[in-house]
Amino acid sequence: MSNNIKIFGERNSVEEVEEGDFLAPKFDANGLIPVVTTDYTSGELLMHGYMNEDAFVKAIETGEAVYYSRSRKVLWHKGATSGLVQKIKEFRIDDDQDCVWLRVEVVGNASCHVGYRSCFYRSVNISEGIEGDAPISLNYEESEKVFDPVEVYGDAPNPTQL
Amino acid sequence: MSNNIKIFGERNSVEEVEEGDFLAPKFDANGLIPVVTTDYTSGELLMHGYMNEDAFVKAIETGEAVYYSRSRKVLWHKGATSGLVQKIKEFRIDDDQDCVWLRVEVVGNASCHVGYRSCFYRSVNISEGIEGDAPISLNYEESEKVFDPVEVYGDAPNPTQL
Repeated sequence: MSNNIKIFGERNSVEEVEEGDFLAPKFDANGLIPVVTTDYTSGELLMHGYMNEDAFVKAIETGEAVYYSRSRKVLWHKGATSGLVQKIKEFRIDDDQDCVWLRVEVVGNASCHVGYRSCFYRSVNISEGIEGDAPISLNYEESEKVFDPVEVYGDAPNPTQL
Repeated sequence: MSNNIKIFGERNSVEEVEEGDFLAPKFDANGLIPVVTTDYTSGELLMHGYMNEDAFVKAIETGEAVYYSRSRKVLWHKGATSGLVQKIKEFRIDDDQDCVWLRVEVVGNASCHVGYRSCFYRSVNISEGIEGDAPISLNYEESEKVFDPVEVYGDAPNPTQL
């Protein structure tokens, strides 16, 4: 049992989890909980990540977004390399307490390792439908990068996995 | 290989995935991709769910949110029971194409099975920090339910799992 368990309530009943007044998060079989991070002012979705219990506690302790990097398998204090720290203005939990919503202010106004403001810089042309046999195309919703990733991250391995 | 594979591009290189013009989504080991759903007008986070490939294609075909229910293990056309259909105004994909962002208009203005507008109706009192040995408390961010879940769902099993 974790040292931190005391700050989490019990998950004894659906009613307690959904309508109770205490934090009782559920981490999945890999010990992770998904995290949705939006810009506090604009509401824009910036990124989607994961926390393990350590990251969860660290985020509450520091008031800054801390994730668990699945590709690097380490605790990931967002902005430690890039300086693009996410200050938590509001920390929400969903009905069954298996997902976190962070509303943040971002130092430097960018959250995507590719250099864009949001990781979700492309939209899907859903109007094309799924007829035909060509891949569905994407539109760029951000016209330019906020920063140059080579300058910021240098030779660090790209987290994107094929 | 799936029948739908033709509408998806190849994931041959990081550059292609991150900066290419074609949809090439990555489904995880369970065949799922996480989905973040926000209100098109207010920007509020409504819910976090998952799609399998069938749900993904169905959502593009119909222009309405379709998820895969992990608890019920079925394709889940949101609103089929409750009438609270989510019309997709914008369908975005993230940098490494392993997460979807749906910007939707919700018929009936509620997306949470508990009866609230958003599943994220409670915030965590992070100012309490992690000292002490009592569970961290939650604040309600929505003052009342939009609908009565008993009236809408009747005896259907609650999807929340302990």
